[in-house]
Amino acid sequence: MDDPRAEARIEIPARAGVPEHGRVPKYYAVKIRLLPLLEELGPGAALPSQRELADRFGVSRETLRQALHELALEGRLRTGRGSRTVVAGPKLVQPFALASYTEGMREAGVRPSRLLVTLERLPAGEQLAADLRIGHREPVFHLERLLLADGERVGLESSYLPAHRLPETLDGFDPGRSLYAFLREELGIALAEAEERIETVLATPREALLIGTNPALPMLLVHRVSYDTEGGPVERMRALFRGDRFSFETRLASV
Amino acid sequence: MDDPRAEARIEIPARAGVPEHGRVPKYYAVKIRLLPLLEELGPGAALPSQRELADRFGVSRETLRQALHELALEGRLRTGRGSRTVVAGPKLVQPFALASYTEGMREAGVRPSRLLVTLERLPAGEQLAADLRIGHREPVFHLERLLLADGERVGLESSYLPAHRLPETLDGFDPGRSLYAFLREELGIALAEAEERIETVLATPREALLIGTNPALPMLLVHRVSYDTEGGPVERMRALFRGDRFSFETRLASV
Repeated sequence: MDDPRAEARIEIPARAGVPEHGRVPKYYAVKIRLLPLLEELGPGAALPSQRELADRFGVSRETLRQALHELALEGRLRTGRGSRTVVAGPKLVQPFALASYTEGMREAGVRPSRLLVTLERLPAGEQLAADLRIGHREPVFHLERLLLADGERVGLESSYLPAHRLPETLDGFDPGRSLYAFLREELGIALAEAEERIETVLATPREALLIGTNPALPMLLVHRVSYDTEGGPVERMRALFRGDRFSFETRLASV
Repeated sequence: MDDPRAEARIEIPARAGVPEHGRVPKYYAVKIRLLPLLEELGPGAALPSQRELADRFGVSRETLRQALHELALEGRLRTGRGSRTVVAGPKLVQPFALASYTEGMREAGVRPSRLLVTLERLPAGEQLAADLRIGHREPVFHLERLLLADGERVGLESSYLPAHRLPETLDGFDPGRSLYAFLREELGIALAEAEERIETVLATPREALLIGTNPALPMLLVHRVSYDTEGGPVERMRALFRGDRFSFETRLASV
């Protein structure tokens, strides 16, 4: 392995078909030994000090920090009150469904809220116009909101909607509430179908700053175009979720 | 921002509701300037040398390398023949569907293949036995295969199947082929439903070694339990895909 961190040798069973050299980086061996400790401590419990843990495992503080860093990126550790490192709970599961963030989080027993970042009226660029089936440079609303779970920032959602389907100003819309509920209850627009794509990306510096994460944290990015019951496009959305806090689930059926 | 890389100041429009300090890390400014160059060069084209690029953007080699590293993690650059850095094509789109990797890749116009890593018969642990609705320590087959796209390693799939549903030995099964096609054509087992969950994780050293990636590369991890037409569990699967090479898409309908 090219990895300069490959220092320790621990035993891995040989696997048929692929040669394995059996070297595992020292920080990774520490990470594996930390897992039962996290299990024992339980969600919300503070971790012992770095000095104490480095002593316990007989490794340098640097090696220990690398193990802690990976556990944080994976969502097994998080920063609690007073910048203490605490054991994280399980990832929040969001359904792949024609439901909003608000509805998905409520189902998971988490209190959802949103903070308005941007509300603007813009002329649509070429790709956006094509996706929303409007003319190039026709007006769209752009709504950008931070997503919160029990008061903590966990994502950033950016929606584009064709202006001709919405009231002249969005005065009647409370940006702290669900957009889909507003569309349904105030405008009688029901979503019937959506195309959705998910990938993993790194946050841009602006996104990392808004969500309050390290820019190196892997994020889950969901792209969606939603259609009403007549097949007309209603919204193009891009939602970024902390990769250490979220997973997405769906139920598939044969067609 | 706490990020020590925050050196350069470039203009970002102020956004309503959230103060932004307008500092962007220097490496990120370089990354943004590299994007039109990648666009211009096109997939498969080799990048100019690091020295040339650092000169062109007036930054240190270290700053340039950080920009290139992020572009590689995001799948915009990849290592070509002779370890040259080349522009990557778009991510492969896999459907969220009750289709195998083989079927999904063929639809995308990519030649799929598989390499056997592990084939073993094991007693099921408690969680696995519960998921497959068999007795604790009843035998299961474990099938682990590398996933290839046009000959290149892109993922690692690990399946557990209840042994009582399969032939005594899996002699008739060619591990280079689709497992689902074997179940359907040889055993008459049709998959009707599945529960699927997707998240982003870091590869373990073993996984990184097998797939041939950097262990810091974010991966997409898909968990799946599949059921036959009678609702009986057929398979529990865990498939890891390179996050720089894959996205997953689905079509949602209201219920």
